[in-house]
Order: sequence, then C-alpha cells, then structure tokens
Amino acid sequence: MSNNKLKITFLGGVGEIGKNMTAFEYNNEIIVVDAGMTFPGDDLPGIDVVIPDITYLINNKEKIKAIILTHGHEDHIGALPFVLQQIKAPIYGSRLTLALVENKMKEHPKVSYKAISVKPKNVLKIGSFSVEFIKVSHSIAGSLALCITTPAGNVIHTGDFKIDFEPLDGVMTDLQRFGELGKKGVTLLMCESTNVCRPGYSKSEKSVGRTLDEIFKNHQDNRIFVATFASNINRLQQILDLAVKYGRKVAFTGRSMINITEVGLKIGEISFDRKILIDIDKIDKYEDKELLIVTTGSQGEPLSALTRMAAGEFKQIKIRENDLIVFSSSPIPGNEKSVYNVINTLFQRGADVIYDELADVHASGHACQEEIKTIHSLVKPKFFIPIHGEYRHLKMHKQLAMNLGMEERNILLASIGSQIEMTPNSIKQVGFVTAGQRLIDGYGIGDMSSNVLRERKQLSEDGFCVVVMTINNVSGEVVGEPFIITRGVVYQDEAESFVQDTKNMVIASLKEQELRGCDPAIIRSTIRRNVSNFIFKRTKRKPMVLAIVLLD
Amino acid sequence: MSNNKLKITFLGGVGEIGKNMTAFEYNNEIIVVDAGMTFPGDDLPGIDVVIPDITYLINNKEKIKAIILTHGHEDHIGALPFVLQQIKAPIYGSRLTLALVENKMKEHPKVSYKAISVKPKNVLKIGSFSVEFIKVSHSIAGSLALCITTPAGNVIHTGDFKIDFEPLDGVMTDLQRFGELGKKGVTLLMCESTNVCRPGYSKSEKSVGRTLDEIFKNHQDNRIFVATFASNINRLQQILDLAVKYGRKVAFTGRSMINITEVGLKIGEISFDRKILIDIDKIDKYEDKELLIVTTGSQGEPLSALTRMAAGEFKQIKIRENDLIVFSSSPIPGNEKSVYNVINTLFQRGADVIYDELADVHASGHACQEEIKTIHSLVKPKFFIPIHGEYRHLKMHKQLAMNLGMEERNILLASIGSQIEMTPNSIKQVGFVTAGQRLIDGYGIGDMSSNVLRERKQLSEDGFCVVVMTINNVSGEVVGEPFIITRGVVYQDEAESFVQDTKNMVIASLKEQELRGCDPAIIRSTIRRNVSNFIFKRTKRKPMVLAIVLLD
Repeated sequence: MSNNKLKITFLGGVGEIGKNMTAFEYNNEIIVVDAGMTFPGDDLPGIDVVIPDITYLINNKEKIKAIILTHGHEDHIGALPFVLQQIKAPIYGSRLTLALVENKMKEHPKVSYKAISVKPKNVLKIGSFSVEFIKVSHSIAGSLALCITTPAGNVIHTGDFKIDFEPLDGVMTDLQRFGELGKKGVTLLMCESTNVCRPGYSKSEKSVGRTLDEIFKNHQDNRIFVATFASNINRLQQILDLAVKYGRKVAFTGRSMINITEVGLKIGEISFDRKILIDIDKIDKYEDKELLIVTTGSQGEPLSALTRMAAGEFKQIKIRENDLIVFSSSPIPGNEKSVYNVINTLFQRGADVIYDELADVHASGHACQEEIKTIHSLVKPKFFIPIHGEYRHLKMHKQLAMNLGMEERNILLASIGSQIEMTPNSIKQVGFVTAGQRLIDGYGIGDMSSNVLRERKQLSEDGFCVVVMTINNVSGEVVGEPFIITRGVVYQDEAESFVQDTKNMVIASLKEQELRGCDPAIIRSTIRRNVSNFIFKRTKRKPMVLAIVLLD
Repeated sequence: MSNNKLKITFLGGVGEIGKNMTAFEYNNEIIVVDAGMTFPGDDLPGIDVVIPDITYLINNKEKIKAIILTHGHEDHIGALPFVLQQIKAPIYGSRLTLALVENKMKEHPKVSYKAISVKPKNVLKIGSFSVEFIKVSHSIAGSLALCITTPAGNVIHTGDFKIDFEPLDGVMTDLQRFGELGKKGVTLLMCESTNVCRPGYSKSEKSVGRTLDEIFKNHQDNRIFVATFASNINRLQQILDLAVKYGRKVAFTGRSMINITEVGLKIGEISFDRKILIDIDKIDKYEDKELLIVTTGSQGEPLSALTRMAAGEFKQIKIRENDLIVFSSSPIPGNEKSVYNVINTLFQRGADVIYDELADVHASGHACQEEIKTIHSLVKPKFFIPIHGEYRHLKMHKQLAMNLGMEERNILLASIGSQIEMTPNSIKQVGFVTAGQRLIDGYGIGDMSSNVLRERKQLSEDGFCVVVMTINNVSGEVVGEPFIITRGVVYQDEAESFVQDTKNMVIASLKEQELRGCDPAIIRSTIRRNVSNFIFKRTKRKPMVLAIVLLD
C-alpha cells in the first residue's frame, strides 16, 4: 500500500519550512535534499550552530540512498559534517557545491564520504527515483533545481532561485525545461518563498556590475574596498574584471575570501590572471588608485576583516580619507544593526561608504513575485507546497498561487516535521515525525527544554552571587564567616560596601533563632531567599543566588 | 567674550547625535532641549534604560533656566525622572507632551517639577533667549519645532517632523512660518535626519485612514484587531472613527493604550463617545463583526497584549479563525525578528494578518528627502548641523544640503559631547564635554567600562562553574571533598558524570606534590586553570570558573 506513494518529510529549518533538509521516500528508498545549518539568534545564547534533528533519518538509515545538494550555501550544506557522522550515503551536487563541501570537510578529516558531481540536464537513477537537475540562477554559482520522478508522480523542487535575464555566465535559469516538464505534467511544485512579499522582479547580476563600473569610474583616485559574500563567485568575477579594467591590483582579506577564490579558480568557475593579485602585506608599495581590496565582513560580522578595519584593529590596513568602501551586499535580516555600526565607524574615520540604501550595489538571489509567477505558469502543477520561508511567506505564496488560479484544496502548507503522502492524484499530510532544531554547543548537543539556556539568559541579565557557609556537623553552629562572591551584579562604586553588607546580613540571618541547628537544606534555602531579597531591595536586580553549606 | 556667543552642547543620543538632549547656552543661561532615553540593545545585557550623561548640566546647575520638550516620545521625555532628580528647572511643552510627562512622573511621586504648556506661535522669553514654537506633524500629536533666538543669532531646531499635506487635525507643519523666518534670516538650521536616505515624500496620516477603511469594509464579518503605538493619537482617532462607522464596539488591551486614551480624552486631543468602549472581559457577549480590539504590541514586545495573545497566554482572548489582525505600524530597526515571530504565530493560529509589507497601514512620522529639501529651501540658513541620525544619516544629510547649494564649510557634523560656538557670522566646534550613555541598571548606574557587562556577556555564552575547597590552616592539607556547582554549562544528559569527573580531577590536582601546603592563592589559581582546561577539553565550552579556598 505504501508502495505506490511518495512520502515527503520536512526535517529542517528554524522558522523556515523545508529550508535545511527534506526527505523523499518511496518504496523503502530515501533521498535527502540538502543538509544545511542556521546560525543561532540571541534567543540561543552560547549555541554555536543549529542543525536539523535527523532522528528520522537515523531510524531509517538503511533506506537512505543519496544526499542531493541544491547549492553550496551554508543553510544547504552546513550540517553535512554532523549528518555524515551518522548517515552513509553518496552526496550529489554541482562542482562548485562539492568543492565547497570538500573545503568544509577538511576540518573533519575523520568523516569520510563519497561525492559525485552533476550538471544541469543530468538525470540520475537512484532506485525507483529519477532525479533531473535543472540550471537556476542564485547568488551562488552551480545552483540547481530538481525534478524528482517516481511512480507516484513527479515533483519539481526549485531550491533557491531567481530568474536573471542577464546572468553573468550566459546560462539562464532553464525556463524552457520548466515549461517542457510542465507541459508533460507535474504532480507537485515545491517553490521557494523568500522574496514572495516583494513585488516585481529581482535585479540582474550584470546590472550590479554596471553600477560597480560606474563607481570605479567615478573614484579613480580612491583606494577602493569592496565587501561581499565570498560565496558569490559571479560577483567576485565582476569585481576582479573591474580591477583589470581600471588597472588596480587586488588584495584579498578574510580567510573565506581566499579559500573560495582558490576553489573557484581550480574548478574554473572564476577566471583571472593571478598576476593581478598582491599580498595584503604589500599594499603599501602601491598608490591608492592602484589598489582594490576585496574583503569579507559585508554582514558586520564581529571578527571579519572589514569590522576589524573599521575598529582600527586590522594590522595591515588603516582606514582613512580617500578610502572608498563599497558594500556589495545587503544586510541579512537581524544583521542590520551590526552592518550599520560598521558603516558609521567607517564614515567617522573619514572614508566614503556606498551601500545598498544609496546605490544598486547588490542583487538579491531570490525570486520576487513576478519571477515566482513565471515558474508557476510554466510548471502548472497539480499540487503545490510553498517552501523556504517563514509561515507568513508561505501564506502569501499560497495566496499568490490561488490568484493564479490554483484551487485552495490543492495547496498544502507544511510544518517542520510534517510528513506528506503524494500519489499521482492526491496529496495529504499524514502525520508528524521528530524534527526541528538540534543545537550544537561545543562538543555537545543542546536542548531547548533544558535549564542551560534559561540559566544563561538569567545570568546575562543580572549575573550571580554565591554564598558559602561552613556549619559544624555536631552543633549545627556556623563556623567562621560566610564567603561571598559575585559576578555581573555590582559596579565598581557599589562593590565594596555591597559584599560586606551582604555578609553582615547573612551573619545576622544565621544567628536568628530559627536557623540554629537546622537542617543544612533549610539553611541553604533560607539564606538564598534572604540574599535574593536583600539584593533586590538594594539594587532592584535579580541575580542568580546560590547558597552552599559545607559541613565541618 | 563668551558673552556674544551661543554655545550648543550635544549631550544625548546613543548612536543618534542630538537625539535625546541638547543644551543651548548664552550669557550664563542654559536651556535644555529634550530629556529622552533609549532602550538598550543586546550589547547591554541587564540594563533597563539608557539616559544621557548629564554631568555637564549638573556642573552648570545654576545656569539652567528651562527644559523644553519638542514632543512626547520616550526618546525625548523618558529621562525626565532621572534628570529632574538633579536639575531644577521648569518644563515647557505642548499639552499632550506634558500630559504624558505627568503620567510618567506618577511613578516617581517624590520628584517635584513645574510644567508650563505652550502652543504653536507662542514665544517664550527666557533671559537672553526667546523661543518660538512652530507646529510640525509627527507620529505623535503636539509636536513642536523651535526657533531659538539670541543676540548671537537664531537657530531653527526642527525636532522630529514630517510634512503631512493631509494632517488629521487639519493643521499642517507651519511651512509659511519656516519660510517667513528664513526670509528674515536664520543663522543655524538643526534638522532631523532619520529618513534622509528615503527618496520622495512620507505618506500622509489620512492615507493610512483610507487604507484602514478599505480593510474594515472588506472584513465586515471578521473580529478585527488593530495593533499600533499608543502614543499615535491621530492613528487611534482614525481607528475609533472606523469602529463607529462600521458599528463595532471597542475594547482596549494594554495598559499604555488605556492610559494614553484617557490622557487624550482629558485634554481634548482625541474625541469619541465613551459608549463605544467595552471592557475586554465582556467581549464574549458580542459577535465577531461587532468587535474591534485595539492593542499594544505592534513591535512584538514580549510582555505586550498582542504577543501574549499570539502565544495563547492572554486570558480573555484566544486567537482563532475569523480573526483579522492589522499591524498599523512598522518594525523599528532591531525589532523585525520579534514582530515577524508574532505575525507567523498569529497566521499559524488561523488568523489573517495585514502588516506594512502587504498594505499601506502605516505612515512614518519622519520627513523623507523631498520634505527635508523643502525645509532647507524655506529656511535657507547660513549654517547647518544635521541632527537625529546615525553618522551615515548625518553624512547623507550633509550631502543633500550641499546638493541644494550650501557650502561644505558652513555645515558641521557634531558628535555626542561636541560643544559648538555660534556667532551671527561663524560656527565652530570648540571642544568636548563629558557626555554619552548613562546605563540605568536597577537602582544603580551602570558603567560601560566596568567588568559587570563583560561578565554578564561571558556568563550568557557558557555559564559558570564554582569549585569550593577547604584547606587546613596549619597543615595546608585539603579537608574533605571539593564542592562543585555549575549553572548554564552542562545539559541533563552530560550533567551526572560531569560533576563527578571534575571533582575527581580537582582531587587529583590537589594531591599533586606541588600544591601540597601551597599558598591558598596559588591553589586557587591552579585549580581554576585546571578546571577551565578540563571543561574546555571535554565540552569545547568556556564557562567562567571560580575557585574558592576556605581555611579550616
């Protein structure tokens, strides 16, 4: 019975459904699409990265035949080091995607894996599955959409995409193939929703190149810096071409920038004469107008090269007048404050700064409304599941599909953990599996429901105060003075009297009749309560208070 | 000599120059413009509010003749409870501004002050100063620009403003007066810069009313919720008018919403028949189509009514299908994530949500480029200082003024703490005074440079571990077992073995020859280092480790 159904399980995504990982299952065979991670927000203090909970995959280990990667961004490949420790299956992806995977896996030399590169138009047979790769444009080269065909029907999964009518590599999102497949009949469309709230069309990559050209032309005497995502290899290509055109030498800063350029050169995704490169230590030998510095830090990341330059903490480069810094990027939601802090500081050092609010120096990698409508109209699927978006985006995308004529009953909104069954004539949610966030905290796995995150949050607000008392085992009397230590509670000018007063209060409490000879547990909880109240009355702060009773 | 100069001192603003507080000083007399606060970001954990450092005012106490408030937003009046504890001077502002001040000061009954209400066109003589109040539109009623005249020339200070050609109260930003003053001659313009990067014109308040009307018309059967800023009294008026028009009863939720409506009614800034109000506890007696719920929480504030409704934690209201929630607001930079979290959750509960990305349900209170140009062109000042903006905004505003024909040498970019001297024919920066952020942490004043914030940040990342050991005073031998306690470090499944293993490691360390009979200080630092290394090797986490050595 389950033999004639395709099961789709949404395993990944923090807030964004279907983003990091999705499993397609037919006839005891599973193929996994993407294995990405997300960076934790302020609500997850101390957590390093967040990966999908793959309990479902671990429980179905022997069924897994392939991990297919749509493209090389971290939210699609970043969980591989963790996933591959538990799952053995070959990885498929474009050459650039696999080169980035290889780069990443160098830091995990004990984890072995097999990788097979694929190209647009390739069709892969994996058991009952046939997977066709379709060229799409995105903010990283080598991005692929998928057409997954099974006896239960076929699914087009767009991955992340945009329609760029002027792609830098000359090869457009394969609209014809989407149309051809649509004409033959597509059971289910899974289409990304990131920019579904944005009307119109996204900008083309070449239009960004033209803006950058204009900027280079108008700033021929300046020392120019361009900050961008290292992974945006097409953008890098345009920037390097401008360096050649305007006779500038190029210095890279930021490890990822250097790594990815090497990877790109090796597999031919980027091409330039190595002679234009100079070492960052040598830039003093050149005049301002002969220099282009290409740097990481376009998101205001605290440890990035550009942020350190702005802070005056980058050894080789001091920002000054006659510097022009171009942010060829836009802040990822949540990063606005850090990005604008860096921009403000650069301005304050006398540099000129051009960023996306001031000029068209960046193009989004995601389809806007008219592009999304184009894909719907080419594919004309029987069923539709919006993916890659917050719930509000999925709702909007559903509305967009209905405006194009789809019936509401043929559209399904999934959640993380949703399991969906598809046949050529039906689609329905059949249940939920264990899925969601898995928090990586150092070597361990964090736990949303544990005390640890709650404790860290409390500590970040008001610090802690530890009271240590020693009590005579026989008499129950307090021995010596209580010892008090605080961190993150009191400021310099309050500190001196604070510790002494707290100590006096504890001594007074201990002398009170009712605590004499009491059970240490009672002493502990009474002192804890008294100290909490004392500190709150005095400072209006609520540190974590711990009382330790030692027996002598 | 200083007698013929106007001294302007920029005292307030976190990132935004001239935002919270500015002092104007002539001939031993000071008038203070605004006394606002800001809410701390994630970089200031545990801090309640941030107010300007008023050391300069305290040192010049006897000179201060007036505190003039441009409008009633928190970033212009919020520091008053703190400032008035140190400074005695009458407060001037519009009726609504003073009503909001009164409301705020109720929580500080011990702080006395004198308040005098002013109206547009009023001219106030304060010593050598004459201050004229000019009507401006903004997202709160009762907003005023200032023309400050002294023998050293005159200054137009716009406060926060926009040009609304269709203001709800029928009284526009007084463009004619700006023009008249400009014609007579203005020495210095200080103009706000919040939206200087936005081209065009801001939307009018009435256009928002028309959009809301359309929404009410198209959702006559829904239970409607509108979330907005309580202080946007004109918006509230429009919403209440729509309730009357569409036959809905109004229930307010959120204390500030109820407070401000009362204040507005009392002073006549808002008008409606009290009969349309119902208590939130009574809403079950009405049909969906008879109800309008006006609520706080438009910024996704964790404790607000709307956020609690979304979370299912609001006793009187359960969000469900047939609910329409309108966010008549836009997220303040930094709040995007919280706002969209609430929107996603409301959608997931089956409600429909309309927010600023989907419809014109909000108008900014700040002038965009063409409005700013209009003010410059009417005032045609000799000198110009852009205010109310991050440094990038001030730079942009300077460029805008230069594009309009001002000479660069007549434009001055101030910093927080800048002191500027003006004569009828000159303006220059003469120095800096103590100024900047004052962090309110409970009853105390925080300190950016102290350990407290750094400790809280470290604790929020990885928690802490305390090791307590008792050592015999005479022999130097360890007495009993070390005691170990951690918070925010280890998860449930790691915890059991973690404490035992750490304890064993400490016991082993203490038994080593070199620690026997050592100075307690050496024991303390050695154990601290050993425990830190042990924990890092085991968990890759870096908690704060404290070692306490007690003498027996």
